[in-house]
Amino acid sequence: MSAQTQDGLTEGERGLEELIALLETTEPEVIKARIAALHPADVAELLNTLGRPEQRHGVFALLETTTAATVITRLTPAVRAEIVDALSVEDLQRLLEEMDSDDAADLLESVAKPRAQAVLEGLTGSLAARIQQLLKYPPDTAGGLMKSEYAAVLEGATVEEAVEIVRTVAEVVADIHNVLVVDHRFHLLGILPLSGLILARAGQTVDAVMDRQVISVTVDTDQEEVARLFRKYDLVSLPVTDPRGALLGRITVDDVVDVLEEEANEDFSKLSGLGEEEPLFDSPMRAIKRRLPWLGLNLVTTSLSASVIGLFQGTIQSMALAAALMTIVAAQGGNAGVQTLTVMVRGMALGKISIAQAKGILLKELAVAGGNGVALGIAAGCVTYILHGQPLLATVLGIALALNFLVAALVGSLIPLILRWLRADPAIAASVFVTACTDMCGFFAFLSLLSLAMRFFA
Amino acid sequence: MSAQTQDGLTEGERGLEELIALLETTEPEVIKARIAALHPADVAELLNTLGRPEQRHGVFALLETTTAATVITRLTPAVRAEIVDALSVEDLQRLLEEMDSDDAADLLESVAKPRAQAVLEGLTGSLAARIQQLLKYPPDTAGGLMKSEYAAVLEGATVEEAVEIVRTVAEVVADIHNVLVVDHRFHLLGILPLSGLILARAGQTVDAVMDRQVISVTVDTDQEEVARLFRKYDLVSLPVTDPRGALLGRITVDDVVDVLEEEANEDFSKLSGLGEEEPLFDSPMRAIKRRLPWLGLNLVTTSLSASVIGLFQGTIQSMALAAALMTIVAAQGGNAGVQTLTVMVRGMALGKISIAQAKGILLKELAVAGGNGVALGIAAGCVTYILHGQPLLATVLGIALALNFLVAALVGSLIPLILRWLRADPAIAASVFVTACTDMCGFFAFLSLLSLAMRFFA
Repeated sequence: MSAQTQDGLTEGERGLEELIALLETTEPEVIKARIAALHPADVAELLNTLGRPEQRHGVFALLETTTAATVITRLTPAVRAEIVDALSVEDLQRLLEEMDSDDAADLLESVAKPRAQAVLEGLTGSLAARIQQLLKYPPDTAGGLMKSEYAAVLEGATVEEAVEIVRTVAEVVADIHNVLVVDHRFHLLGILPLSGLILARAGQTVDAVMDRQVISVTVDTDQEEVARLFRKYDLVSLPVTDPRGALLGRITVDDVVDVLEEEANEDFSKLSGLGEEEPLFDSPMRAIKRRLPWLGLNLVTTSLSASVIGLFQGTIQSMALAAALMTIVAAQGGNAGVQTLTVMVRGMALGKISIAQAKGILLKELAVAGGNGVALGIAAGCVTYILHGQPLLATVLGIALALNFLVAALVGSLIPLILRWLRADPAIAASVFVTACTDMCGFFAFLSLLSLAMRFFA
Repeated sequence: MSAQTQDGLTEGERGLEELIALLETTEPEVIKARIAALHPADVAELLNTLGRPEQRHGVFALLETTTAATVITRLTPAVRAEIVDALSVEDLQRLLEEMDSDDAADLLESVAKPRAQAVLEGLTGSLAARIQQLLKYPPDTAGGLMKSEYAAVLEGATVEEAVEIVRTVAEVVADIHNVLVVDHRFHLLGILPLSGLILARAGQTVDAVMDRQVISVTVDTDQEEVARLFRKYDLVSLPVTDPRGALLGRITVDDVVDVLEEEANEDFSKLSGLGEEEPLFDSPMRAIKRRLPWLGLNLVTTSLSASVIGLFQGTIQSMALAAALMTIVAAQGGNAGVQTLTVMVRGMALGKISIAQAKGILLKELAVAGGNGVALGIAAGCVTYILHGQPLLATVLGIALALNFLVAALVGSLIPLILRWLRADPAIAASVFVTACTDMCGFFAFLSLLSLAMRFFA
């Protein structure tokens, strides 16, 4: 049992550091008993934490096959690759036999092709066929998330027959939550949660107690859409069918929890110009490769903005203070634009936006920008006047700042909408484009207004 | 049945627009039948979408009480408040009687105190007591997420007795996935999934088949920690105990899915200087109030950066091109810093970082910054030399850019670590601080190097 305490760690987690210390000094038998008492997720954490490969292989060798099969699905990609490389083809086969088909397919995907082929050839026919089928689906679709193991009965079956099916399937797979009711073509007719099965009276048919409103997806459905359905309909498990509606498998909520995390991180990473999610402990070379293209794009756009400044060298030469103040206009616009962008990108991740809604959002963003722009324009203008005593410069700064807020609202809302309309990802590099626009417009608004004002009033 | 088609909508969702068109012209009886065929989540979407309050009240009045109880939990806060305001105290009581205790408590929390009191007084004693208990817990803790309905048996009970308990509880609550096994002090001893209950042989005791490795939390556990445990241990339901270990309730995975979304959005929003998550369709006044403080903070920090430029007015006057190029140094540093920050904040959201790991991350970030900084510094220097033919200016630009990448790596990794060490949120306003540092250091590095170079070489 592992009740929580204030340090926010489960009992299994609290024991890990002590266990690591014991590894070097203690008999394998003692270690083995300690590890057998751990949850597989904690064993995986132990392996992910250990510093030396020999230690990892030593601990992994102490695991029962069923535990090892669960542990291996929860390792970081690098540690998993290392462990898998050290296993024989026969060891791998023993592990795969104990795994759900989706985890088995994921594991085989990380093994080199010829070796994976050798492993598959030695598996029992039905498991090999199921895994090979799953390997065909792209990993970010319903097919890539689903497992082929489920409990299904034909319409007209009795509750007792359904219980028998659940018994058979639950021997092999742990997380059965529903019985699926199908017709003879394997088309879904209904769904019956296990609690409903327990509630039903003896002799009833499943048709009498099943829920006919089944939410299901086809294999090619995008994982983001799958996650949306789990959230909207509070699902624990979602049946997956072929394009003609015949049952193929199911997706369970634990995989969707990972997808949600992944999708949120993806949006996040793209907004910040990382392209795709980067692990915290990645190799510097991979991180450089991932970040350099976005920084390069940013170098191009900021050079364009800088060339706007180049147009006003005369103005700057006669008033060097302008070079300082123009950066405030640009930075404020960039910040406001990224605020709008964040609200848009997250809002769009959770659902679609109609044309009518897009108009409403744009008007709201312009109103917000107007309010904030006027408030901060006045503030910046007043402070400038107090510090430098130049009413002309202060007025130009205030006006340029307010104008740039309107630009920020426009580009912050329109760029993600346009990207989606072009069927591109609304988050990708959007912040680079938004700040490029607010930089250029900010510099231009401030410096052109200033040079005009200097000509007329000075 | 609602199989998916390519447009990514369920059958219920596809019918919504047609149904909205019918609302004005069709008999209530026809509408009622159409709505009864919808999933409650789709009815909620219909209500959230409808433009006019009278339409919403009309549709809500057509719902069966059990459907209405589910629908109301899925409305947006504004629509829910509007519907609840229009209901009588008796209507509200009827709805609450049909709801899980956690949803009932959430609903009552949005009702004005005196009215909530009147509603509570009319409820059956046990429900009122359960709701009042739940209302005591902060909404972002395990207590705020849990419901008081669960299936529990005493140790030593037989499998048949456990089935009887599940039957009784499942009559009232839909999502029972486990039977909890407790001792006479209500301390958790084990957990038994319903599939395990179905697998067990007649006459076995629950002790013989239960899983003794129960993961549980105390009521005061933070919701972020709760979400972490669901992810790590692939949970569907998590028991919640009082500080001494006695069972109080359970959290189900559908609520955690919402928490995960919420936490990711929170980090997102804080990083972009929004403070807290902003709904896409918020009122402009509320959006202004939420964004203005961060923009104000940004105005202060950018003014500080601008004052760095003010120190070098002489340099800028004699070489106005410097005013343009310094913005490239600052913008590139800001972008690199936010990349580092994003990786840090998301990495920290998923787990703790030890001191040893922090050192490793910092070294990695410095290596990445070194690589990217040198590459982009050379690129920027070469382009500047080609365009403007000034080798001194080009060299200073390249060096300042590379230096600013190192600053970006330092502040991008250290600021979130320091914020967490101060027990503040590592995401909050971090991007404002990071870009303030990269702006200031970027301007200073470039302009001071340039003024030195001009003094010695010009």
